[in-house]
Amino acid sequence: MKRFRLLGMITFFCLIISCSLALAQPKPQPPLWQVYQQSLKSAKYVDLTHTITPTIPVWTGFAAAKFSPTTDPKTSKIYTYSADGFEATHYDLPTDQLGTQLDPPAHWNPDYPAIDELPPTFAVRPLVVIPIQDKVAQDPNYHLQVQDIVNWEKQHGRIPQGSVVFVRSDWSKEWPNPALATRTKFPGVSLGALKFLHLEREILFHGHEPLDTDSTPTLEGEAWLLKNGYTQAEGVANLDQVPETGALVVIGYPKFQGGLGGYARYIAICPPSWKYGVSVGQLPESPLPQAAKPLHWDQQLGMRVR
Amino acid sequence: MKRFRLLGMITFFCLIISCSLALAQPKPQPPLWQVYQQSLKSAKYVDLTHTITPTIPVWTGFAAAKFSPTTDPKTSKIYTYSADGFEATHYDLPTDQLGTQLDPPAHWNPDYPAIDELPPTFAVRPLVVIPIQDKVAQDPNYHLQVQDIVNWEKQHGRIPQGSVVFVRSDWSKEWPNPALATRTKFPGVSLGALKFLHLEREILFHGHEPLDTDSTPTLEGEAWLLKNGYTQAEGVANLDQVPETGALVVIGYPKFQGGLGGYARYIAICPPSWKYGVSVGQLPESPLPQAAKPLHWDQQLGMRVR
Repeated sequence: MKRFRLLGMITFFCLIISCSLALAQPKPQPPLWQVYQQSLKSAKYVDLTHTITPTIPVWTGFAAAKFSPTTDPKTSKIYTYSADGFEATHYDLPTDQLGTQLDPPAHWNPDYPAIDELPPTFAVRPLVVIPIQDKVAQDPNYHLQVQDIVNWEKQHGRIPQGSVVFVRSDWSKEWPNPALATRTKFPGVSLGALKFLHLEREILFHGHEPLDTDSTPTLEGEAWLLKNGYTQAEGVANLDQVPETGALVVIGYPKFQGGLGGYARYIAICPPSWKYGVSVGQLPESPLPQAAKPLHWDQQLGMRVR
Repeated sequence: MKRFRLLGMITFFCLIISCSLALAQPKPQPPLWQVYQQSLKSAKYVDLTHTITPTIPVWTGFAAAKFSPTTDPKTSKIYTYSADGFEATHYDLPTDQLGTQLDPPAHWNPDYPAIDELPPTFAVRPLVVIPIQDKVAQDPNYHLQVQDIVNWEKQHGRIPQGSVVFVRSDWSKEWPNPALATRTKFPGVSLGALKFLHLEREILFHGHEPLDTDSTPTLEGEAWLLKNGYTQAEGVANLDQVPETGALVVIGYPKFQGGLGGYARYIAICPPSWKYGVSVGQLPESPLPQAAKPLHWDQQLGMRVR
């Protein structure tokens, strides 16, 4: 009996010790949080989005956006930091085809989804960047051809199904020059290339730097895409700062009911060793840093600046 | 000499064979693309964003948004699918504090960043969801306390540094009831809880379902956050459909220069086994499916519907 009591006591203490050890161990991180800690946190983030202002290039068939300080609808007085403790912004946006954006197919065909009807899986994807800037430097009206895609694949491997394919032309290096909106020759994406990317490679969507997909009189590429239920990104920026393969892209856009364009945000997540971009922890985020000058309304520019 | 020649030939053929084998192998996927294929593609995506319409609840100090069809500025004629091949939307948005949003600190303090000045690392983060809906069911004015956070951590482990913390109150289940905007009692987040989350846990930002952070007369929580350089999410939806731990959140918002609010998009990326949400490949995306009814302008609702 004595031996059993001793054995019982040893078992009991072993149990106590292992329980304490278990409690002292930090909880294992859930798998998606491990993905963040191990792969996303140290990645380099590059913004592929133009800042929207009242004077950015916009198609001549659309009026310009107007910004103004928000007013109190009861008194029509402008809210000010000094009197009200806060300020806000009034936007008069004559078109949803503005800046860096995401075209839903309902922009051209009401039988297909509007911007609020895209599924939530439009969130993060492998990013492919196909460069045509050398050819555009020779011919400002150069359009991406199937052969350019085939050449890209010879170098980098097959374009992943469901990926986002952005075409780098360096057109946006002149942004926000207003002349960009009136040029009839600009780098495009040929209908053949669009059909190859969607029908042969089954990508999610392609994107280009200019305001239109191609410079044909009928916009044949945009027409084929949107009339057949495909989406596309327009006005994409900073493609000279992302790798041709191996990055991801985060996709965001506000959800206006029945909206026919999207004021979108595209952020590339590049490998940690990539030469451009910023990693989590490299810049203060929370709190954010104080600026050297306060933000204030500029009457002439029609927006807040520092 | 003969033996050396034979050895040389064997080496040469071995080299040819291994080169051919290497070329025949598919290229190894880059690490971030592997992360997508292995962990993100099969995840469940849940939209945490309200759809913006002209009649959603908005603070009584702001006028309502107005949507209209885009017109040609030269003729004032509305663009139509039948006459022009496309349509677009005109938004008159009296405030950037609308719907599901992201508050930059410049909303209350011009010394800190506006919406276009946030770094691109505001893109994807671990998502923590702290539930207070049971306490709110007893007291509609209940505010998250430090003890609720401590209790959450006892169950799930320490809140990760740099994460996004959304407070589930189920307030948004009544959305878009206009009465939501006028109630003086609503679920909030106490100043103590905000300080704990930012100073002790160093989170990126917190988010809540109501239009304001707390129901104190001075909005003491929002004041402390924004005057000190922190950001916050407001009007967050569908928190009953995401796990309390283990999901990621994708953050997107348009980049209006000097903007003091963000028409944001938040999408949760939940584990593949999660009961809510949709995975890549479960719904048609490209092309998107045709709708049963065409989108059309509804004069009475002041927006496009099906």
